[in-house]
Amino acid sequence: MYLESINQPFDVKNLKVEQLKVLADEMRQALITKVSKHGGHFGPNLGMVEATIALHYVFDSPKDKIVFDVSHQTYPHKMLTGRKDGFLYEEKYDDITGYSNPKESEHDHFILGHTSTSISLACGLAKARDLKKEEGNVIAVIGDGSLSGGEALEGLDFAPELKSNFIVVVNDNDMSIAENYGGIYQNLKLLRETDGKADCNVFKAMGLDYVFVKDGNDIEELIKAFTKVKDSTYPIVVHICTVKGKGYELAEQNKENWHYTAPFDMETGKSLFEYNEEDYSSVTANHLLKKMKEDPSVVAITSGTPTVFGFTDEKRKEAGSQFVDVGISEETAVALASGIATGGGKPVYGVYSTFIQRTYDQLSQDLCINKSPATIVTFAGSVYGMTDVTHLGLFDIPMMANIPELVYLAPTTKEEYLAMLDWSIEQTEYPVAIRLPGGKMISDSKEVTKDFSQLNTYEVTKKGRKVAILGLGTFYTLGEETLKLLEEKTGVQATLINPMYITGLDEKLLEQLKEEHDVVVTLEDGILDGGFGEKIARYYGAFNMKVLNYGLKKEFLDRYDVQEVLKKNRLTATQITEDVMKML
Amino acid sequence: MYLESINQPFDVKNLKVEQLKVLADEMRQALITKVSKHGGHFGPNLGMVEATIALHYVFDSPKDKIVFDVSHQTYPHKMLTGRKDGFLYEEKYDDITGYSNPKESEHDHFILGHTSTSISLACGLAKARDLKKEEGNVIAVIGDGSLSGGEALEGLDFAPELKSNFIVVVNDNDMSIAENYGGIYQNLKLLRETDGKADCNVFKAMGLDYVFVKDGNDIEELIKAFTKVKDSTYPIVVHICTVKGKGYELAEQNKENWHYTAPFDMETGKSLFEYNEEDYSSVTANHLLKKMKEDPSVVAITSGTPTVFGFTDEKRKEAGSQFVDVGISEETAVALASGIATGGGKPVYGVYSTFIQRTYDQLSQDLCINKSPATIVTFAGSVYGMTDVTHLGLFDIPMMANIPELVYLAPTTKEEYLAMLDWSIEQTEYPVAIRLPGGKMISDSKEVTKDFSQLNTYEVTKKGRKVAILGLGTFYTLGEETLKLLEEKTGVQATLINPMYITGLDEKLLEQLKEEHDVVVTLEDGILDGGFGEKIARYYGAFNMKVLNYGLKKEFLDRYDVQEVLKKNRLTATQITEDVMKML
Repeated sequence: MYLESINQPFDVKNLKVEQLKVLADEMRQALITKVSKHGGHFGPNLGMVEATIALHYVFDSPKDKIVFDVSHQTYPHKMLTGRKDGFLYEEKYDDITGYSNPKESEHDHFILGHTSTSISLACGLAKARDLKKEEGNVIAVIGDGSLSGGEALEGLDFAPELKSNFIVVVNDNDMSIAENYGGIYQNLKLLRETDGKADCNVFKAMGLDYVFVKDGNDIEELIKAFTKVKDSTYPIVVHICTVKGKGYELAEQNKENWHYTAPFDMETGKSLFEYNEEDYSSVTANHLLKKMKEDPSVVAITSGTPTVFGFTDEKRKEAGSQFVDVGISEETAVALASGIATGGGKPVYGVYSTFIQRTYDQLSQDLCINKSPATIVTFAGSVYGMTDVTHLGLFDIPMMANIPELVYLAPTTKEEYLAMLDWSIEQTEYPVAIRLPGGKMISDSKEVTKDFSQLNTYEVTKKGRKVAILGLGTFYTLGEETLKLLEEKTGVQATLINPMYITGLDEKLLEQLKEEHDVVVTLEDGILDGGFGEKIARYYGAFNMKVLNYGLKKEFLDRYDVQEVLKKNRLTATQITEDVMKML
Repeated sequence: MYLESINQPFDVKNLKVEQLKVLADEMRQALITKVSKHGGHFGPNLGMVEATIALHYVFDSPKDKIVFDVSHQTYPHKMLTGRKDGFLYEEKYDDITGYSNPKESEHDHFILGHTSTSISLACGLAKARDLKKEEGNVIAVIGDGSLSGGEALEGLDFAPELKSNFIVVVNDNDMSIAENYGGIYQNLKLLRETDGKADCNVFKAMGLDYVFVKDGNDIEELIKAFTKVKDSTYPIVVHICTVKGKGYELAEQNKENWHYTAPFDMETGKSLFEYNEEDYSSVTANHLLKKMKEDPSVVAITSGTPTVFGFTDEKRKEAGSQFVDVGISEETAVALASGIATGGGKPVYGVYSTFIQRTYDQLSQDLCINKSPATIVTFAGSVYGMTDVTHLGLFDIPMMANIPELVYLAPTTKEEYLAMLDWSIEQTEYPVAIRLPGGKMISDSKEVTKDFSQLNTYEVTKKGRKVAILGLGTFYTLGEETLKLLEEKTGVQATLINPMYITGLDEKLLEQLKEEHDVVVTLEDGILDGGFGEKIARYYGAFNMKVLNYGLKKEFLDRYDVQEVLKKNRLTATQITEDVMKML
C-alpha cells in the first residue's frame, strides 16, 4: 500500500504516474471506509482525490500554500500531509478534525468551515509574501457551489489586483450541497461544454487568466495543468471538472444525499441510523407547504441548504415557485426576504444559526431599518447544535438580538413554535426571527392562544415566591428541573417564567417580581456576553434584587462534549440550585 | 421653469425631448446650488440627472419600482417625485433626507444607505410581484463602485433565477468614491471601449441579458434603451456610461474630492469650512506612513473609503504597495487582513463603525477563530458620528465585542490611541480592534507606558470611594465631569476608571471596588443592549453593589440632534449625578 508510506507531501513526488493512480484508489477506499463507519463529508472529498494528489505532486507545500475552501474537500489533503492514520485506522479516526486546521499540520493555514472564504484569505497570504519579498505559490481551492457567496465573488474580483502569483483552483462538480442556483452556473456549464473555450468567461470577465481541465479526475491532465501555472507571475484560475462522489456509485447518482453522510452500510449504502422521527425540520417544511397551498404569497427561502428546514428534493418540487434557493448567498437571502415582504409577500428564510452570522448588516440595514415583516427561522442555535468550532450555534443571540426593531422569539415547544410561525407570517409590523430550541423536540399538544403582537410579554407558567427563574428557549426545561430541585431541597416554591421574547424586557413583570422575590435566575442557551440575561441584570442594577445569569462562557469551543460544557458552565439543575441556595 | 411644475413623475412624460434637456439643466443647477449651501453627495447625483429623467419618462413609478443603490444618486429622483421643493427653496432643504426613504414618498421602496444592496432587495420586489401575479417593472439602479460588494455580486448572480421581468441599470461613471479596484473594472473598461460589444462580458457571464448605452448623459439614447427593455420578460442589464460630476467642471476634474462635499463657494469651488486641524484620520495616516517606512510588512487596507483613515491620494502614492484598496468589499478586507497577518505581515484595516457591520462572520470565522494578529481601527463609532439612520455608529460594541478572542480597545486620547496602535501592530497574539472616540480629538501629551498585552487591566485614574465611574472611550470625559459635579454636590470623592478594554472585565479591580464602593457607574458611547456596561451589571448581579449603566437606548435614530439624544438618555453629568445621589 502506497498510502501507508506517505508521511509528507514530498513522498508523493517520488511516485510514478501509474503509482499515483493506485494511490488514488487506496485513498478513495480509505475515505469510503472511514466515512461509512464514522460519517463525514463524502461526495466532495471523493471528487478531489486526484486533484489533491496532483497539487502535492506539483507544488511544494508548505512553502507553496494551499487554502481549501470550507474544508469539505480536505480529507485527501489530510491523508497526504502526515495525517493518513486518521483515515486508515479506526482507533485514530477521531484524532483529526473534519476541517482544515493549522494546529494539526503546517500544511493547513486557517481553521475554516464556512464557505466562500478561501480566495480572500489566500489573497492575504499572497500579499504578505509579496510585502516580505518571499517566494512560493499561493493556491486557493474552491468548489463551484461556494462561488456564489459574496465573499468569494469579492475575492475573485480583488485577486487580479495582486498582480503577482496567485492560483485559484475551481473544483467544478456541477453541484452545491444541493443543485446550484445562480447565473454563474450557466457560464460554468458553457465552459464545460466548450472545453473552456467560450469567449464569455466569468473568470476572465473578473480579470483573471484561465486554464481549463476537462477531466479533473485524470491525474496526468491535472499534473500538466498545475505544472503550467506553477510560479505564474499573475493571478490565474484553473477550472477543473470533477465528479462529486467519484468512485462510490450511489454517491455519484444522488449527489445531494451523499454530500455529507452519517455512518452507512458500505455494500447497500443504507444509513446505519434509522431516523424517522418528526423534528423541527420536517415540522417546518410540512407546515409551510400547508400554508403555501392556502396562500400563494407564502414563500420559503434557503441559501443552499434546503434540508435545514426540511425541504427535501420532493418537498421542493411540491412547493414549486414558492420555494427559492438563492445558492450559498446568505446576504441575498435576507435582502430578498426583506424585498418580498416589502412587496406584500410572506417570506420565511430557514437557516442555521452559524450561517445567519453572515448577514449582520443585511439584518440591520435591509431588514430592520425597513421594518420589513419577513420571518427568519434559525436552526441549531444551541449548545446541542453542531460542535465544530466553525459551526457553533452559541452566538446568534448577541449577534441578532441587539439589532433594533427585530423581534427575536424563543419557543420552548413545537406548539409554541408553530403558533409563533403562524403569527409571524401573517403580521405586517415587524421583522421576526424564531430561534428553535436545541435537543429533542418537545411536543405537549397544548393549544397556544397567546397574541404575540403584545411584544415582550413573558409568560408566568408557575407563580411562586422568593426566586424567579426565567428559562429561555431550550433551557426552559432546565428551569423546570431547577424549580423542582429547589423545592425538594429548601421548600421554596419558585416562580417559573417562559420569556419567549429575546429582544425585549417585560418591564411590568420585572417590576412585579420585586414585590415577592429576592433572586432572579436567567437561563439561556448561548454565550452570556451580549445575551438575554445581561439585560435583566442591567434592569435590576440599581435595586436590591439579586440576579444570577446562566449561559455559556464567551469562547470558541471545538468538538466538545455537551454534558461537560454544561457542567463547566454550571448549567445543571444541581449546580444552579446550589448557587441559589447560597443567596437565600 | 419646468422643474417647478413637476409634482409627480407623470409630469415628466408630458414634456418633449428638448424640454427634458432644459429640465436637466434646471435640475443640475438646483443640485449645484443646494449642495453648495448645504453639502451632500455631489458627483454621483450630477451624473445621474439625465438617466433619472429618462427612467421616469419611460417607466411608470410607483407601479414600476425603482430601487437606487446606496442612495448617493437619488437627488434627481427626489426632484421628480414630489420633492423638488427640498432642492429649490433653501428653507426647505432639510425637509428631505439624503437617502431613499418610503416615509418621504411612495416612489421610494426602502430606506437604504449602505452600498451593494439594491439588486438583492429589488429581486425581492420582483419575486413578490410574481408570487402575487401582479404586473410592473422592477428596476435596480447601481453604480459601478458598488458592484464589487459581495451582496451586489450575489444579487447579480441570483437575478437570472427570477426568470421574469427584472432590470439592472448599471451607472458606470468609472469611479467608486475613489478610483475603482477589482478585476470587474477591467471588464467594464473593455465594454466601454467596445461599445458593449466585447464577447467577454461579466453581466452575460453572470447569466443576464445586456444592453449598452454609450452616452448615459444623452436623454434620447437613454429613453431608447429603457423603452427597449421595458416589460422585458427576463432579467437584463442596461449598462450606461455617465460622467461623475457632470456639469460642474471642478467635480468632473477631481471626482474623488467631489463625491461628497461640504458647503462650498459655487464660483471658486472653495470649501466654506477651512479645516486644517489634526484629527484621528490624519494622525492615523501619518503614523502608519512612518511605520511603513520602518517596516515593509506594515500595510494599510481600505474598502473603498481611503480617506476615512487619512489616506488622501497623495498619501496613498507615498504608501505604494503598502496601501491596499480592495474596493467596496469589507468582507474581503477583513479576510485579507487575517491572511496577511497569518503570512507574517502587519495589516491595519481602517473602517467606519457602520461599515464594519458588514463583516460579522469574517470577524468571527476568518479573523478571530484563527486568532490572526491583524489590527482594525473603527472610526465614527460614536453618538458624535454620522447621524443618518443608515450610518449610525452605535452598534459596533454589541456587534464586535461579544466575539471570542477579539481584543477591542477604547482609547480616550490621541496618545493612548497611538500607543495601542503601536502595540497592536507589533504583537502577534491577538486580533485587535481599536474604537476611536467621537467628538473632538483630545491630546494631553502624556506618555503612555501601559503594556497592553496585560489584557483587561483597567486604569484607575483617580482613587476615591463610595462611587466608581467607568468612563469608556469617548465618555471618559463625561466621567470626569460627573466626578467633579458629584464632589461639588455631595463632597463624595468618587473613583474614576478608564477601562480601555471593551472585550473583557478586570475582575481583580471589580472585586477590589466592593470594599469601599457602593455604586458603580458605567458610561459607554453606543447602545446599552449587548454592550460593555451590561457585563459589569452581570458581574455584580449576585452582590450588593448597585450598578448604573449609561449609554444609548436600542433604537434606530435618524438625523438626530446629539445634545438632545444625550439628554434623553440621561447622558449628561447633571443627570448622572442626580441619579447617583439617589443611591447614596
